[in-house]
Amino acid sequence: MNIVILGSGNAATHFAQQFQKRGHQIVQIYSKTKANANALAFALQSAATDDLSQLQPDADLYFIAVSDGAIPTLVSQLASGIKGIVVHCSGATDIAALNRFTNYGVIYPPQSLSKNKSVDFAEIPLCVEGNTTTNAQLLLRLARELSAQSLLCNSPQRMAIHLSAVIVNNFTNILYQMAYELLAENSLPFDLVRPIILETAEKVQNHIPFTVQTGPARRGDEDTIQKHLKFISNKPDLQQIYQLLTQQITKRK
Amino acid sequence: MNIVILGSGNAATHFAQQFQKRGHQIVQIYSKTKANANALAFALQSAATDDLSQLQPDADLYFIAVSDGAIPTLVSQLASGIKGIVVHCSGATDIAALNRFTNYGVIYPPQSLSKNKSVDFAEIPLCVEGNTTTNAQLLLRLARELSAQSLLCNSPQRMAIHLSAVIVNNFTNILYQMAYELLAENSLPFDLVRPIILETAEKVQNHIPFTVQTGPARRGDEDTIQKHLKFISNKPDLQQIYQLLTQQITKRK
Repeated sequence: MNIVILGSGNAATHFAQQFQKRGHQIVQIYSKTKANANALAFALQSAATDDLSQLQPDADLYFIAVSDGAIPTLVSQLASGIKGIVVHCSGATDIAALNRFTNYGVIYPPQSLSKNKSVDFAEIPLCVEGNTTTNAQLLLRLARELSAQSLLCNSPQRMAIHLSAVIVNNFTNILYQMAYELLAENSLPFDLVRPIILETAEKVQNHIPFTVQTGPARRGDEDTIQKHLKFISNKPDLQQIYQLLTQQITKRK
Repeated sequence: MNIVILGSGNAATHFAQQFQKRGHQIVQIYSKTKANANALAFALQSAATDDLSQLQPDADLYFIAVSDGAIPTLVSQLASGIKGIVVHCSGATDIAALNRFTNYGVIYPPQSLSKNKSVDFAEIPLCVEGNTTTNAQLLLRLARELSAQSLLCNSPQRMAIHLSAVIVNNFTNILYQMAYELLAENSLPFDLVRPIILETAEKVQNHIPFTVQTGPARRGDEDTIQKHLKFISNKPDLQQIYQLLTQQITKRK
């Protein structure tokens, strides 16, 4: 396929590299910042532009990989007569955001992508949607070239996946940070809990989370729970989070 | 050292195996349930008892590995004249719980131990406390035979470590479970987020958590946050947790 990449950030970089690796042609990179378009285009031996009127008119795929908030403006500026399939890769954006085109769809990776860190795309299940069955199947075939785990899902399902990714990534990470701060205040290194963090994540790779739930709430050890709450009596935020998550564990026993 | 193990559960099993592996003699296993004492004693080629009056009087170390709630009763039933060092391995129990003995201390592993799953003890930093400098140093030497990462810490520090372990293990795991349920309700497999769970845990192995924080709250993407909250409008518990953790991320930007 001849592919135009719209965007030059983390997702744009990873997807462009993956498409190229699978034998597709990255014919152009668009970014509203020319230097960014140039940088990615140079790495991929492709062309660059910061001018939407200069966009290649006859590519097979226009892959939108800009921030969620920038999608509506970019879409409104694209020629509605584009024949190629227009795709975004946002988890929280409805497929309808692209409904001014004839052919459109979504390829969403539930993974946190950083330009400077390679990820194994074969491990990322790509979530695919198309405005027609034909387009959905076309995008699913393309996605499966990148990851055999890819699957079709609709926009509400993709929202559930995106929200789940936020829960297990962003919310887990802020819990890690709160533990980091608690340890630091007690002159202790974060290294003390790095092994249990990894162990916890590894355990759910082949178990349903609640079947491996441990700790005072799971055991109904009210005495330890009270000791913990007393220990953080000067941290009302952490106390509230402690109580809510403890309730959730207790509720499922 | 000649070691008596008091307890026959997960921690008792792992520590007994580790001590034996390092050349120490497990001279006796005590459990109030004889069958459990027998089972562990058989595996270790040791003696078993369910009668505290039959406890070996002259061991070098009495290692208490029973549930936190059972520690006070067990301690009150032990002969206060014990010369060997009496140690518990609880994260949330003050060292003072053992102050009826002459020599006592703590060796606490901030890790979730399961009998049936081997863990790499070399990776677990053991947290050591003693009632005297001599006993602290003796226990630290012993702990370092099991893990070179071992360190001295006092009882409030151990409480901070135990609470941090609860945060990054138990609370993270219940977040995984809530994501599991959200996906299941939308006919989606948990496999969709297993890779990002592992990636999130791996990232903080060599970064401070907040430096790798991502997501709508970190970006200040209020639009996506509102979409998520609307999506779970029928789940007030999850909404409340979402809002609190989002606030914590926003607060640290």
